[in-house]
Amino acid sequence: MATPDAYIDTHLQSFLEDFAHLIAIPSISTDPDHAGDVRAAADWVAERMRRAGLDASVVDTDGHPLVLGRHDAGADAPTLLVYAHYDVQPADPLGEWRSPPFELTRDGGNFVARGAADDKAQVILQISAAEAALRTGGLPVNLILLFEGEEEVGSTHLTPYVAAHAAELATDHVVIGDSMMFAPDRPSLIFGTRGMAYIEIDVRTGSHDLHSGQYGGAVPNPAHVLSRIITSFHDADGRVAVEGFYDDVRDVSPALRKAWAELGYDEEAFRRSAGGAPLRGEPGFSTPERLWIRPCLDVNGLISGYTGPGKKTVLPARAGAKVSCRLVPDQDPERITELLKDHVARRAPAGVEVTVTGFQENRPWYAEPEGPLFRAAAVAYEGVYGVQPVRVCHGGTLPIAVDFSELLTPSVAVMGFALPGANMHAPNEWIPVSQLERGMRVMARLYGELAAEGR
Amino acid sequence: MATPDAYIDTHLQSFLEDFAHLIAIPSISTDPDHAGDVRAAADWVAERMRRAGLDASVVDTDGHPLVLGRHDAGADAPTLLVYAHYDVQPADPLGEWRSPPFELTRDGGNFVARGAADDKAQVILQISAAEAALRTGGLPVNLILLFEGEEEVGSTHLTPYVAAHAAELATDHVVIGDSMMFAPDRPSLIFGTRGMAYIEIDVRTGSHDLHSGQYGGAVPNPAHVLSRIITSFHDADGRVAVEGFYDDVRDVSPALRKAWAELGYDEEAFRRSAGGAPLRGEPGFSTPERLWIRPCLDVNGLISGYTGPGKKTVLPARAGAKVSCRLVPDQDPERITELLKDHVARRAPAGVEVTVTGFQENRPWYAEPEGPLFRAAAVAYEGVYGVQPVRVCHGGTLPIAVDFSELLTPSVAVMGFALPGANMHAPNEWIPVSQLERGMRVMARLYGELAAEGR
Repeated sequence: MATPDAYIDTHLQSFLEDFAHLIAIPSISTDPDHAGDVRAAADWVAERMRRAGLDASVVDTDGHPLVLGRHDAGADAPTLLVYAHYDVQPADPLGEWRSPPFELTRDGGNFVARGAADDKAQVILQISAAEAALRTGGLPVNLILLFEGEEEVGSTHLTPYVAAHAAELATDHVVIGDSMMFAPDRPSLIFGTRGMAYIEIDVRTGSHDLHSGQYGGAVPNPAHVLSRIITSFHDADGRVAVEGFYDDVRDVSPALRKAWAELGYDEEAFRRSAGGAPLRGEPGFSTPERLWIRPCLDVNGLISGYTGPGKKTVLPARAGAKVSCRLVPDQDPERITELLKDHVARRAPAGVEVTVTGFQENRPWYAEPEGPLFRAAAVAYEGVYGVQPVRVCHGGTLPIAVDFSELLTPSVAVMGFALPGANMHAPNEWIPVSQLERGMRVMARLYGELAAEGR
Repeated sequence: MATPDAYIDTHLQSFLEDFAHLIAIPSISTDPDHAGDVRAAADWVAERMRRAGLDASVVDTDGHPLVLGRHDAGADAPTLLVYAHYDVQPADPLGEWRSPPFELTRDGGNFVARGAADDKAQVILQISAAEAALRTGGLPVNLILLFEGEEEVGSTHLTPYVAAHAAELATDHVVIGDSMMFAPDRPSLIFGTRGMAYIEIDVRTGSHDLHSGQYGGAVPNPAHVLSRIITSFHDADGRVAVEGFYDDVRDVSPALRKAWAELGYDEEAFRRSAGGAPLRGEPGFSTPERLWIRPCLDVNGLISGYTGPGKKTVLPARAGAKVSCRLVPDQDPERITELLKDHVARRAPAGVEVTVTGFQENRPWYAEPEGPLFRAAAVAYEGVYGVQPVRVCHGGTLPIAVDFSELLTPSVAVMGFALPGANMHAPNEWIPVSQLERGMRVMARLYGELAAEGR
């Protein structure tokens, strides 16, 4: 009997034709005009799962549907749930594409199309891997493929569905099949993403803007008040100076610091990607530590008075700021929001109205990167890439990782096969052809390694 | 022979009809569609001056014309130049007017119309006073009425004209016939207005905005840098903390502080007019001192990142502020701009691009409020109002006062007859009927008093 790898060898061309077919369905979830395409993509994915030998269904929600594919390997086998999404971002600005966005185009060793990297490659490679395993002697794990059509519009209906069907979706491990590798030929296991607390600060001194000559010097200026508050958020060295902010921050383990110090993190490439900004942050931590395991506070927006061209002698009556914190274990976003409110309230001058509104709160997600899933995935990656995967985090916020952790299992990992600079959400999105193939092989190996780990 | 006062008694009705006529010409200088009306107003004013017995001419400029009226009293008599303007602001928003803006409407003891207070009442009362003096035995001073049609659009062509015709406009005293009294029945001599230095600060960290999750904590945030700079502009007590800012500030004389302390300045009314803002400023000074004789620094505008509704997790690449200082003697706006630039430059973090652009520089104007013009005006006011005028300043900036002082004579005073809250530049602009009449009588008396002061 053939191996999954041999099956992939012989069927790769057909899998890539599937990819082209899925790419050609413009499943743009944010655009109501494309709701029919999103539905068509869901139907196609479910049908493709059935062809692979999975038990598949399209699950309606109040938004775009979910697609669920299952394989039952028996109660003794471990269960793996794989998440991916079949919806895509709009292709605008269309004029910047060098090939039609919804036509899978080969450019050297890469595929170029909207959704090539984010996230239709994952949809195809996950189904292909399952098929390769099933057709070559069975799939030794219970597999649940849970693909959504609303990732690009906030995953509104995913979490309620998972919560309501937690028993049915009971699993030992979750792989989030989205995101990217650390670098070419450096496969990655992402085990953490930061949480978020997002607030808006509004400073009001009076009911209306004033003439700066007739009032300047005799009434408070809300832009000054706001600037003083923002300045107070950090000490002179760049540490967050909100009282209690670091109280619950877990120390970075020496082992992790050592591992990350040896990553060969390319600071110069990071700096270039940041538009040439200098690299600066909390003292005593490296750039990857600052991004992945240390919290931060940033102003996201600032406004007061006249902001058009030229000058206007206005003394503003209000100033506003949007401020967000990225959070790490064990910071609680609700507590951080309260600390921010207290910090600001203590700095409101008498007679000046300073209000803080909480906008968004997301808990950080950090898995223990040493359990059976991470062990199995590391072996699978090494078998395909010839190197151990790096265990890294991501500075952004991934609410579904928190939800899966809390509703299903703490054994969650993010496995991405796109590469840095993939133009996700931008024109000329791309993924190497070889990464689809390697992704299939990694997943097929993962099933066996997970089965070997047992329940 | 009748006195000027008796002449005003018998001709008041006719003078007020003149006022209605001038009001009816919509001389909106900012609106090219009304350029013909501005010209028509200039022609009417010149003709009206001629009827009063003055030698009048319309002087073309590259913008709207000036109107010049002269009376020659001989080389031994002192010369008085009176400035006013015959152009007006637009009447928008039209829907908020309770009567047609370009129709002089009597409302109780007030006239209501666009230009009633700013500044057509002055045009009429100045010409009427000259006529009353001329028709009742002569005008004992050389009088130059210099009325412009571009005050509401920046007086672009006035200063170059005055500079080019300084010999022809040589004068001992200048009265600026614009502005308002300190309070009803409290006539005012304004002897100072603050100068200005206006800059824009631009902070850039990189070439483009970044995702706050992917970069937050590892690159500097320009909004933080800008807030720190703005905060550094003041000490905790509200004094300007720009190095050298107060170096050239003249001390407020004890006599002036005493006089102003006895003014009965209505802080509560000021606070109401400020939309309920609390009153706060440089420690050790009263509200009128803070407004009239102390410098200040205010942010006029502030922008960075995302400022729309809701949230966006953007790490901005730039932050900008507009900042202006109101200046008092002997601060030099060019030096202040340099101090601001130095102050900001010293606070620019390494690798962050911080630029300061100078926008506008105006010197403060402060006359010595004790010379012959102020003595004569005080007697004239007291003769009409029964009380001595208060000698006050204005916190705004009046570039023409500086120009007259430097090009013609340091003996400059602002004499206003509108009242506080006159809705200048707003709907339902008004002036008491009695203030036009009193203005005529004050000016007619001023001629005699100035003649008595001699050259």
